[in-house]
Amino acid sequence: MALIVQKFGGTSVANRDRIFNVARIVANTRNAGNEVVVVVSAQGDTTDDLIQKAAEISSNPSQREMDMLLATGEQISISLLAMALSELGVPAISLTGWQAGFHTDRAYTKARIRRLDSERVESELARNRVVVVAGFQGLNRMEDITTLGRGGSDTSAVALAAALHADRCQIFTDVEGVYTADPRFIPRAKRLDEITFDEMLELAGAGAQVLNNRSVELAKKYGVELEVLSSLNPVPGTVVKEVTSDMEGMLIKGVAKDTDVAVLTILNVPDVPGTSFKVFGVLAQKNINVDIILQGTGREGDKDLTFTVPLSDADTALRVLKENQHRFGGKDITVDTGCAKVSVVGGGMKSNPGVASRMFEALFEANVNIRMISTSEIKISVIIDKADADRAVAAIHDAFIH
Amino acid sequence: MALIVQKFGGTSVANRDRIFNVARIVANTRNAGNEVVVVVSAQGDTTDDLIQKAAEISSNPSQREMDMLLATGEQISISLLAMALSELGVPAISLTGWQAGFHTDRAYTKARIRRLDSERVESELARNRVVVVAGFQGLNRMEDITTLGRGGSDTSAVALAAALHADRCQIFTDVEGVYTADPRFIPRAKRLDEITFDEMLELAGAGAQVLNNRSVELAKKYGVELEVLSSLNPVPGTVVKEVTSDMEGMLIKGVAKDTDVAVLTILNVPDVPGTSFKVFGVLAQKNINVDIILQGTGREGDKDLTFTVPLSDADTALRVLKENQHRFGGKDITVDTGCAKVSVVGGGMKSNPGVASRMFEALFEANVNIRMISTSEIKISVIIDKADADRAVAAIHDAFIH
Repeated sequence: MALIVQKFGGTSVANRDRIFNVARIVANTRNAGNEVVVVVSAQGDTTDDLIQKAAEISSNPSQREMDMLLATGEQISISLLAMALSELGVPAISLTGWQAGFHTDRAYTKARIRRLDSERVESELARNRVVVVAGFQGLNRMEDITTLGRGGSDTSAVALAAALHADRCQIFTDVEGVYTADPRFIPRAKRLDEITFDEMLELAGAGAQVLNNRSVELAKKYGVELEVLSSLNPVPGTVVKEVTSDMEGMLIKGVAKDTDVAVLTILNVPDVPGTSFKVFGVLAQKNINVDIILQGTGREGDKDLTFTVPLSDADTALRVLKENQHRFGGKDITVDTGCAKVSVVGGGMKSNPGVASRMFEALFEANVNIRMISTSEIKISVIIDKADADRAVAAIHDAFIH
Repeated sequence: MALIVQKFGGTSVANRDRIFNVARIVANTRNAGNEVVVVVSAQGDTTDDLIQKAAEISSNPSQREMDMLLATGEQISISLLAMALSELGVPAISLTGWQAGFHTDRAYTKARIRRLDSERVESELARNRVVVVAGFQGLNRMEDITTLGRGGSDTSAVALAAALHADRCQIFTDVEGVYTADPRFIPRAKRLDEITFDEMLELAGAGAQVLNNRSVELAKKYGVELEVLSSLNPVPGTVVKEVTSDMEGMLIKGVAKDTDVAVLTILNVPDVPGTSFKVFGVLAQKNINVDIILQGTGREGDKDLTFTVPLSDADTALRVLKENQHRFGGKDITVDTGCAKVSVVGGGMKSNPGVASRMFEALFEANVNIRMISTSEIKISVIIDKADADRAVAAIHDAFIH
């Protein structure tokens, strides 16, 4: 008998039929002799509807009250799924985030899990029940409801799997696993049987949306084996774990595109110590994530500082940089929103120096101009024109994956 | 500075504009120098929508899961109202039933309050905030969410007023107070300035739907002065309290109609001890409320037993009585669903023997046939044909209220 945590996203429980589809997957897992804990998100558009209700009241609602509001979405899903399981003859009980023991810090709308007291979940499992837990939510020290922010339900599932020492954590989604590229755009993209945590992290960071980085980080930290698979066609999917078994196998695990990118450039910054610290400190204070940084040499004792931020943060970044420009100097600050990041990811490239050159060759042959390059042990990213992005992904995918 | 509990029903918070209307009432009360605790129900049709979602999953859903589901309705309302108050510059915080300290028994869907720990509410008041509490809900000993059943939000408000020793508990509704009869049908109906708890209880029991019996009972028990008033036109309404100030004033406080009535008759029951106990014991076991009981004399050592039950329970009552008829005997059991109960209520009638005769005279002149009569210290009820009900109410109202 294994203990399995299964997580289903909002589209998987969007209506009555899909809820029963999920209930059947859970029932099959349990009838095969397993204990099952299920984590679900809010139904389909529920979260958007609730956000709309709040927007009608206030353009800047209290974050505490937003969490109070949004947490109802998962509470609806869990009760309905527990009812559906009972209909299929499977004893089930739903638990909110706080009932399931999720204690978080007090950062409303993007709380982090501090502690998980899994006694209640364990006692319900011991009573032979399937436990249906509301993802995305917890309770802070003031006993107020918090939500975990983007990818929160995946994180809830991994945290439960870690606390319960589950044998596996299955993340059900609308694709059949992790692919070497987005199969909607690259028809020849292949589903991976296995991928390492590090590769998955790089792929997620590079724009692949199948798993949230936070949940992969947590899974890596606690050694929780993840499986990504489809709720509509629940055949074996992609297993994400510490070490994969393909010895000297596929060099490249995936090619990903990220168009949520803006390039900022500060021209003619004085070439003195502390400049980068001041620039990026200002952005960090605003919680703006800087990704690729490129520092070119200017003409006379100065330099150009170029870096990427999420597209949605570009306006804020430009504003705070201009407000603080007296602290680090520079002539002009420009922002370019017409670009995209394309990355190749794979553990195999560590010991294989030819990967970069093969990638650049493919881009050259596809007539794609490279504007920035960033490399890590298991990833190479390039910033190119947004209009070239799909062509670039296809060319790189063709060059590496046959 | 007074402490005032204000309760608003579902129609009062049905949409954005109504939420702001409520927020303005609360803001005005607070700006007049009062501390305010607000209790709200789920928005408009939310509860019905949630019940519909459950009905799509199961024809007989778990009551625990129903409470988990339905409790989201008030949680949505409280967060939106707290946001609206903030928009008006009033510091506010929302609390779910369990956060506000409502502990109940474990009777899901119709839980009763066992204890109210008001520390959190008091500490938020001390921080100068308006506290917006979810009505209708609490937590049982297993830390599971329960709901209080019909009229639950009124009961929540009264319980909070009692625990906080509030100066007044205002129940906002869609009418401007308690009337001598339903003003939709009796245009000459008058709004009462005051009414006693006992009179209000009899009126509510007689079919007046303005206040739920349970909340009035609780208010009487803890001496919480209630005020019933309109959220759309918040002028002074009707105050419900232990002793009213009108010395020898209006004899009759109201005339009410209840069409949720069925009359059951068991014919030729043996006239031996224990018959009533057996009949009504069977019904009590099924939680069926028996209202008026009439025991006539039969011919030969037997009797006819006639009584009323809520219309919705008539089928169940007939079934369980037939199943258990061997225990108390009798020839036939009949059920009549074409009747109504019309009642006059007023503390003044205690010492005024002319009330009953004046009522019967009015019914006689209106050509209404009386089928059953029941009297108490402050109420007289008659069972008549449903088709005569509105005419009967008008005739009685005319006879007493000028």
